[in-house]
Amino acid sequence: MSRALRLARRGLYCTHPNPRVGCVIVADSGKVVGEGFHVRAGEPHAEVHALRAAGERAYGGTAYVSLEPCSHQGRTPPCVDALIAAGIRRVVAAMQDPNPQVAGSGLRRLAAAGIEVDCGLLEAEARALNAGFIKRMEQGLPLVRVKLAMSLDGRTAMQNGQSQWITGAAARAAVQRLRAQSSVVLTGADTVLADHARLTVRPAEMDVNEEQARLAASRPPLRVLLDSRLRVPLSAPFYQAGKALTVCHQASAKVRQSFQAAGHELLAAADASGHIDLFELLRLLAGRGVNEVLVEAGATLSGAFARAGLVDEYQLFVAPKFLGSTARALLDLPLERLGEAHALSILDIRAVGEDFRIIARPL
Amino acid sequence: MSRALRLARRGLYCTHPNPRVGCVIVADSGKVVGEGFHVRAGEPHAEVHALRAAGERAYGGTAYVSLEPCSHQGRTPPCVDALIAAGIRRVVAAMQDPNPQVAGSGLRRLAAAGIEVDCGLLEAEARALNAGFIKRMEQGLPLVRVKLAMSLDGRTAMQNGQSQWITGAAARAAVQRLRAQSSVVLTGADTVLADHARLTVRPAEMDVNEEQARLAASRPPLRVLLDSRLRVPLSAPFYQAGKALTVCHQASAKVRQSFQAAGHELLAAADASGHIDLFELLRLLAGRGVNEVLVEAGATLSGAFARAGLVDEYQLFVAPKFLGSTARALLDLPLERLGEAHALSILDIRAVGEDFRIIARPL
Repeated sequence: MSRALRLARRGLYCTHPNPRVGCVIVADSGKVVGEGFHVRAGEPHAEVHALRAAGERAYGGTAYVSLEPCSHQGRTPPCVDALIAAGIRRVVAAMQDPNPQVAGSGLRRLAAAGIEVDCGLLEAEARALNAGFIKRMEQGLPLVRVKLAMSLDGRTAMQNGQSQWITGAAARAAVQRLRAQSSVVLTGADTVLADHARLTVRPAEMDVNEEQARLAASRPPLRVLLDSRLRVPLSAPFYQAGKALTVCHQASAKVRQSFQAAGHELLAAADASGHIDLFELLRLLAGRGVNEVLVEAGATLSGAFARAGLVDEYQLFVAPKFLGSTARALLDLPLERLGEAHALSILDIRAVGEDFRIIARPL
Repeated sequence: MSRALRLARRGLYCTHPNPRVGCVIVADSGKVVGEGFHVRAGEPHAEVHALRAAGERAYGGTAYVSLEPCSHQGRTPPCVDALIAAGIRRVVAAMQDPNPQVAGSGLRRLAAAGIEVDCGLLEAEARALNAGFIKRMEQGLPLVRVKLAMSLDGRTAMQNGQSQWITGAAARAAVQRLRAQSSVVLTGADTVLADHARLTVRPAEMDVNEEQARLAASRPPLRVLLDSRLRVPLSAPFYQAGKALTVCHQASAKVRQSFQAAGHELLAAADASGHIDLFELLRLLAGRGVNEVLVEAGATLSGAFARAGLVDEYQLFVAPKFLGSTARALLDLPLERLGEAHALSILDIRAVGEDFRIIARPL
């Protein structure tokens, strides 16, 4: 199963909206006879790749798969049928399908066909690999990851806005990988205007092997810009860098046409108070198959996600320096009493080049 | 030598103003026949303890000592003479005496007596253990460690001052140990007034074994209060908790008498601009044998040390929470341009209970 998960991880940058899944077929002799991973939506599932590689050697063998095999006809035929047809004797899944309406039905169909079935091996690892997909299936919302680059004293830029290259090359490569694994990279107008940010994935800067860079390039995330008053011109590098989805308060037919003509999508969405409703936006994105959203924005928009309780994970890239007490705050998050502090759970701290990265989740 | 250093560390809380030193005597057979560590100034050095334990078995043996043996008559006789008298065949020292005026003379005297001498084994570890003593010997200044407790977003307290228990019990125990290993714990009037802080070492809260707690209790650090305008009354818990040294701008004879009567020391020291000159204060403390100063103060005083470039090491205890953008800054450190940022080198990051600790040095 550990091997199946490692295979699944090879799809980190390309399977969305589908989950990352790996499969290993082990013959009765204990020998691995086939393996595979899901690469891209519309293409064969991991089980199919593994069964093809195994051929007749799959007969009587065990299939280790990091997610319950599907039992429904989607863009590809059900994997359950393929496993039964190949004469697999036993199926071990790391976890059930997270869709509450289908969870367990694939395993039940295998069992009904006389196949020995087990589920739950390395389940925590399997769930972590597809946390966004699982959240979308279970809650109809994508996983929201907020990335921030800060100094050791919690500042993101000087008062005058100076902030370029706070963190080093290794941290920037890690951010590229975070973008590549996301279905959506979401930002705000201030960031795009101030930094001329494009927020694209540049595979050559990801510091991954050729296969991974190629897979990432084949499935770039959708870039979503929150620009209530449409301050960012279509001539900005952000729009020149490829198709984007822009969310604003309102737009005339003429503006809509200009966006359409430039290959972008424009969405007018404001709540009663004239703000963009982040929760509704996330629901809308989930409805489009978005599993993981990376928020790469300034203190205002990142703070809005934090205040609304919509953050699943913070990725804090911390540079070993002090920017001082007049520098800009990490998040626009005004709190009065200690009891209002946002409690977090630290999942990981590790060095990333000269910097370090803290992964934390709100408690 | 590793064992000698481990022994030396047992003196972490009690040898100041002396260095921590450990000694192991190994007989010709390879067997450890004696060991010891320096406990307290005025008491025998590590070599004497080790030679006493070895007795006649020291003859022909090797002495591993974490610091060059002394060759001068101090409050105790020279260790060089004792090693020669015991018939030691070889001496291995981790490092030379850091006092530039005596460095190497002990080793030379041993060599002149026909003893085989080596120096430099595990030197980095030996230097780290006595970094404050070494700095005082080499530069006439103590090592300055600034301890700060902060949230993950670099804040120390809410705007209203609420800050108690930001970090947990394990972090507080670590702070107790930092205090205990310091010659001086230095603070400011705001901290003492706001938190009723005593800044004492409470050995029971150090989370160390009985021996270490007992040794720490036997040699508490001097508490130094910077209180320019003498705002802290002698009735404050800080003064009630034991002898302290207070530094102010100026004091009348009557005020001086009241401090003296209460068992405290009062020092008037202001530069031309009416500020306490921190550099001169540190020089004065070094002159009194202070090796390590722990600054436990608010953003103003800690920031003053940072701005003056007088900090050797930051000990940042980080609680896994966000206190938000209106909370108080880590350091009073107004900087305008990115180029003015204080660059740091991270020495260590590790979990301390629910919190984590970052040890960083200015570059």
